[in-house]
Amino acid sequence: MVEVVGTAPTSAMVITKFVYRHSWKTNLINIKGITRDSITIMKLTKEQLKEIKNQQSQTNNTKRVISPELEKILYDAIPALDHGFVRVVDYMGDDTSIVQAARVSYGKGTKQVSTDSGLIKYLMRHWHSTPFEMCEIKYHIKLPIFIARQWIRHRTANVNEYSARYSILDKEFYLPTSENLAAQSTSNRQGRGNVLEGDQAKEVLKLLKDDAERTYANYEIMLNERYDGSTIDENKKGLARELARMNLTLNTYTQWYWKTDLLNLMNFLRLRADHHAQYEIRVYADIMLDTLKKWVPITYEAFMDYRVGGTEISAKGKLVIKKLIKGEEISIQDSGLSKREWNELMEAFNLNDKMI
Amino acid sequence: MVEVVGTAPTSAMVITKFVYRHSWKTNLINIKGITRDSITIMKLTKEQLKEIKNQQSQTNNTKRVISPELEKILYDAIPALDHGFVRVVDYMGDDTSIVQAARVSYGKGTKQVSTDSGLIKYLMRHWHSTPFEMCEIKYHIKLPIFIARQWIRHRTANVNEYSARYSILDKEFYLPTSENLAAQSTSNRQGRGNVLEGDQAKEVLKLLKDDAERTYANYEIMLNERYDGSTIDENKKGLARELARMNLTLNTYTQWYWKTDLLNLMNFLRLRADHHAQYEIRVYADIMLDTLKKWVPITYEAFMDYRVGGTEISAKGKLVIKKLIKGEEISIQDSGLSKREWNELMEAFNLNDKMI
Amino acid sequence: MVEVVGTAPTSAMVITKFVYRHSWKTNLINIKGITRDSITIMKLTKEQLKEIKNQQSQTNNTKRVISPELEKILYDAIPALDHGFVRVVDYMGDDTSIVQAARVSYGKGTKQVSTDSGLIKYLMRHWHSTPFEMCEIKYHIKLPIFIARQWIRHRTANVNEYSARYSILDKEFYLPTSENLAAQSTSNRQGRGNVLEGDQAKEVLKLLKDDAERTYANYEIMLNERYDGSTIDENKKGLARELARMNLTLNTYTQWYWKTDLLNLMNFLRLRADHHAQYEIRVYADIMLDTLKKWVPITYEAFMDYRVGGTEISAKGKLVIKKLIKGEEISIQDSGLSKREWNELMEAFNLNDKMI
Amino acid sequence: MVEVVGTAPTSAMVITKFVYRHSWKTNLINIKGITRDSITIMKLTKEQLKEIKNQQSQTNNTKRVISPELEKILYDAIPALDHGFVRVVDYMGDDTSIVQAARVSYGKGTKQVSTDSGLIKYLMRHWHSTPFEMCEIKYHIKLPIFIARQWIRHRTANVNEYSARYSILDKEFYLPTSENLAAQSTSNRQGRGNVLEGDQAKEVLKLLKDDAERTYANYEIMLNERYDGSTIDENKKGLARELARMNLTLNTYTQWYWKTDLLNLMNFLRLRADHHAQYEIRVYADIMLDTLKKWVPITYEAFMDYRVGGTEISAKGKLVIKKLIKGEEISIQDSGLSKREWNELMEAFNLNDKMI
Repeated sequence: MVEVVGTAPTSAMVITKFVYRHSWKTNLINIKGITRDSITIMKLTKEQLKEIKNQQSQTNNTKRVISPELEKILYDAIPALDHGFVRVVDYMGDDTSIVQAARVSYGKGTKQVSTDSGLIKYLMRHWHSTPFEMCEIKYHIKLPIFIARQWIRHRTANVNEYSARYSILDKEFYLPTSENLAAQSTSNRQGRGNVLEGDQAKEVLKLLKDDAERTYANYEIMLNERYDGSTIDENKKGLARELARMNLTLNTYTQWYWKTDLLNLMNFLRLRADHHAQYEIRVYADIMLDTLKKWVPITYEAFMDYRVGGTEISAKGKLVIKKLIKGEEISIQDSGLSKREWNELMEAFNLNDKMI
Repeated sequence: MVEVVGTAPTSAMVITKFVYRHSWKTNLINIKGITRDSITIMKLTKEQLKEIKNQQSQTNNTKRVISPELEKILYDAIPALDHGFVRVVDYMGDDTSIVQAARVSYGKGTKQVSTDSGLIKYLMRHWHSTPFEMCEIKYHIKLPIFIARQWIRHRTANVNEYSARYSILDKEFYLPTSENLAAQSTSNRQGRGNVLEGDQAKEVLKLLKDDAERTYANYEIMLNERYDGSTIDENKKGLARELARMNLTLNTYTQWYWKTDLLNLMNFLRLRADHHAQYEIRVYADIMLDTLKKWVPITYEAFMDYRVGGTEISAKGKLVIKKLIKGEEISIQDSGLSKREWNELMEAFNLNDKMI
Repeated sequence: MVEVVGTAPTSAMVITKFVYRHSWKTNLINIKGITRDSITIMKLTKEQLKEIKNQQSQTNNTKRVISPELEKILYDAIPALDHGFVRVVDYMGDDTSIVQAARVSYGKGTKQVSTDSGLIKYLMRHWHSTPFEMCEIKYHIKLPIFIARQWIRHRTANVNEYSARYSILDKEFYLPTSENLAAQSTSNRQGRGNVLEGDQAKEVLKLLKDDAERTYANYEIMLNERYDGSTIDENKKGLARELARMNLTLNTYTQWYWKTDLLNLMNFLRLRADHHAQYEIRVYADIMLDTLKKWVPITYEAFMDYRVGGTEISAKGKLVIKKLIKGEEISIQDSGLSKREWNELMEAFNLNDKMI
Repeated sequence: MVEVVGTAPTSAMVITKFVYRHSWKTNLINIKGITRDSITIMKLTKEQLKEIKNQQSQTNNTKRVISPELEKILYDAIPALDHGFVRVVDYMGDDTSIVQAARVSYGKGTKQVSTDSGLIKYLMRHWHSTPFEMCEIKYHIKLPIFIARQWIRHRTANVNEYSARYSILDKEFYLPTSENLAAQSTSNRQGRGNVLEGDQAKEVLKLLKDDAERTYANYEIMLNERYDGSTIDENKKGLARELARMNLTLNTYTQWYWKTDLLNLMNFLRLRADHHAQYEIRVYADIMLDTLKKWVPITYEAFMDYRVGGTEISAKGKLVIKKLIKGEEISIQDSGLSKREWNELMEAFNLNDKMI
């Protein structure tokens, strides 16, 4: 599974297989566990399998535009991390919806741009934002709480999260694979350095696993209820759910419906699929990038060219580049750039020999 | 298409006739005009008829949920005022999408509410907002600019408006029918009083019509271009469109794509379908209320009961009502209410004899 | 302290005393601990005391309007729960700013409402929202993560949260006092029932305390760094902070700057100071209600009358009330209300004998 | 007051003169008119002069941070176009507020960036948005309606506009100076070409002036009320204001309070102070850029360097620049760029000889 995440499954069959390893309902049925790094991974419940099957089996007629490639993976649970998933559960519009809106705005003015692809590229290049707001997508996401806390900072989305005030959280926690067990970077306060190895890696994984399991077990004791709904001690009351949840660790999984428009989805992906983003959220962003490609392929191409693969250059940076093109000498002192800025600029143009 | 349009209140026949009288494209074809209050009303263009026909003739298969009643009127141009229209051009979700989101949020907690209808009513009553954000709708609207300026104040929507920087506006202006030619209220600064009559009504209509036509004609002269695209004087340049438009009057029609979620649609309708709203925007809101009913019928019922037909009572007002129920005497002096508040309260409960 | 929280301190002196018991910096100075339920409560750091003193000692001249009562408590750390606080750190506008904006909007139309107080009440009663958006406030809040997760769902605010990707979280966790250790309600999925007592209460508190301390200690081990910045084992690397944080429990404290306008503050308070809100967030909302009163006293009065103390009645509910006022018989069957709705209505008007 | 106004760039004297030519109240006092392009320009009213004097004469003590340069021009009416103005009427925070918020977010992590200036530049370069949201500013703006319609599309602001439903609009219309009377660009659908000259210019100005005056005069006739509040014909009723306004042209002035945070102000300025923006809105944006400089001078510098003076380059564009730096041949065919993109790229780096 690990290999597939981030590049996205290439066929419905692959996805179907993975689906069995995930769950977004309680009342798990007792199927043989799959283990990785000696952690048992939860499986799909009967209820959940049935729900997906029902959703996927419907064939409705609509006069709305459809996105054929996205329809193929609609409702699929694409695995993310060890217990998470990304599901596209609804959408509205496709590439032509952007073009339609732009042509209303610009009227005859758009006739100069002859093709849909040309128009979408033009809009992307010149930061015309409103036509991209005309498409909407809704995801069902399962993710660790500490990642949900990063994610929710994107305010321009609609969210319905599983509430631990009302219901008991599933017994599922994120545990990094050993190759993702990075040390703190010594050069960068927010970054990761090399991977921890040997005994220290084992120790860390054991601490994470033991603490998550113990706090979850105590959560059940406080609730006086197991995650399958059975009561522990008939003579006791349970602590209020809204209180007991505070004992859980931040790697516990939660889930939500997350709906946003195409413009804000791209803003999200631009930040979260970037290599500066935390690995754990990037895994989700990479999967979503793939759903973007299926949904609005022309917009996806323009987004990759102008946003993801592009660069911004400051006024001072432009002067440096102009001199470099002319073959003139330029030093960091003359440029007015800080060392950090200088190096970022040189790196962007692969001028590694000029980095200092 | 034509047969379906007639879901609006009055009659299908009338509406059907009107459909042909509206236009959202330039290049009008020359069909015999229809007059009302001696104003020629524009007709649908060939291009436009073809576009609607094309949109409505598509039948796509989708795994998404659909709203059968809304599908029936999808893309129809429902007439509004003398040249405007409301078209639903896309949507996402239905009543079950709200229920689905709520059940994810509240998990097993929602089992107490056994039916979809009961759950939606509960959500509406207790101002649970996020599940209603899970549905989205997109309209194509043609409307006078002075109404567009009220409308745009609802910020939580996505908008692409026809741009008069790029293109020439159609020669279409709103002129009230004589029964809507209201005098300024003398008791209420924002309200309308009785209808103007006789010569004064005729004079006002003539002023509105003449000024709109003259300023439009001068708009063409300044542009050196007629609205059909032909040049007026080959030896002259035209004033920039972004400047010439400033000569148009505020009853000129514009158009836009307007997309919002169900929660914000209801916030819009609550204010704009209210009897305090200006008549001209209420015409649009009333049509949209009807599309709401087709789209999400259960939500519509709850909305009408709790929001539109409901009342809010202040803390002081509650004390008054409590005394009235007990049959106790209560005077405005004792109540702490202002005269205006007192009367609003009495009116809400049909206690007209207690109004002062 | 416990007695004061929620009703808000009544004098600057009281606040000053409490200030010493809270902390939003690391590097705690070693002052004698205060214990409650055998949990040591953190105290202010030297750095923090100095920062507050500096902020409070400045006296700047401004032509802007000021709110005299709010100035008195500016920068004070008002205690909330066991380690949290609420600080007002900046604001813009006062009651007159609302009036000024309304008078621009409504021009001469507002002359009918003669006083500022009358105008503000009118705006509140008729849901005129934009004038209340003209005032802005910024808080510095320290709060448990599980409460922060509820809070952040209010999207119309600006937030800068302490980042555990960059920095190490303080060793502070929320532990309920014994009187707040409520059992799960058996009648209401989200509610609290009676308080847990005796041995079970002690057991729960011990579990919460032990789990928080153990997971925090293991957090330090994984980081290979103590919260005072000292290294644990010079021969080891530390796990990346962005990963190690996942081991912390949800009652760990975080902090943020939270800025919003007056309208959205009232929307927040309406929901979070309500008795349906979780006790732990209500503690914060109650303190903020008190800052609202100091900041914009006229608006506060109108808010309490129309929003907090008021009631909404559905169309069906109105019919019931009308009949009750007339002294007519009315049964739940005739009303069309559900049992739940019926009881909510009767309770709102203290008609407890009619509840079923 | 008059003496204080002159803080704007050019000279106090010039600005002082202009101040007298603007008005945001009705009830104009009768001072000798000043003419430009033979259009009488309105003057300040007594009421307005008094209001500004009152606002500017207050000296309040505050513990809040202040921005000394912005205080100097607080409440001043800085002229814009022929009858418009920009007034800063309130603000919250300064450069240090951004730093303070960033240091809370990034904690010890920010210690690497030693100065406030360095930190703000870092935040700007890496699109860290939330710290810039911690500052807020409120403007009072008078502007033509067709510009207001562009402006209002920036949704992330709080607005209270003068309502022509309630009050009568001032008799003030925007008329371009002859040097701004641009022809429609023939190469660019949204652009301006050369200036109209001679008789055509005179004709256009006359049309604009006459149509604005006639429609305003008819507006008064329909209202049966002059803009000074006097009744025209005692025996007639007036048309409702909400209707009569539709007869006004789009160059009629309106006014509003407009409040936004620093991040969204910069987003606005980035688009509206750009040379692609319509001249008439750029006049306002330029004035606001100057207020930005006074308010948060460090942020202003970073904004000019990274946003206004900077450039974005697509992935394909980067490859072209890399080759140019290496001195390699590159043609548009090899680049994969469209002609338009190629030329935009060459222009950005002053490689005019490479444009095709």
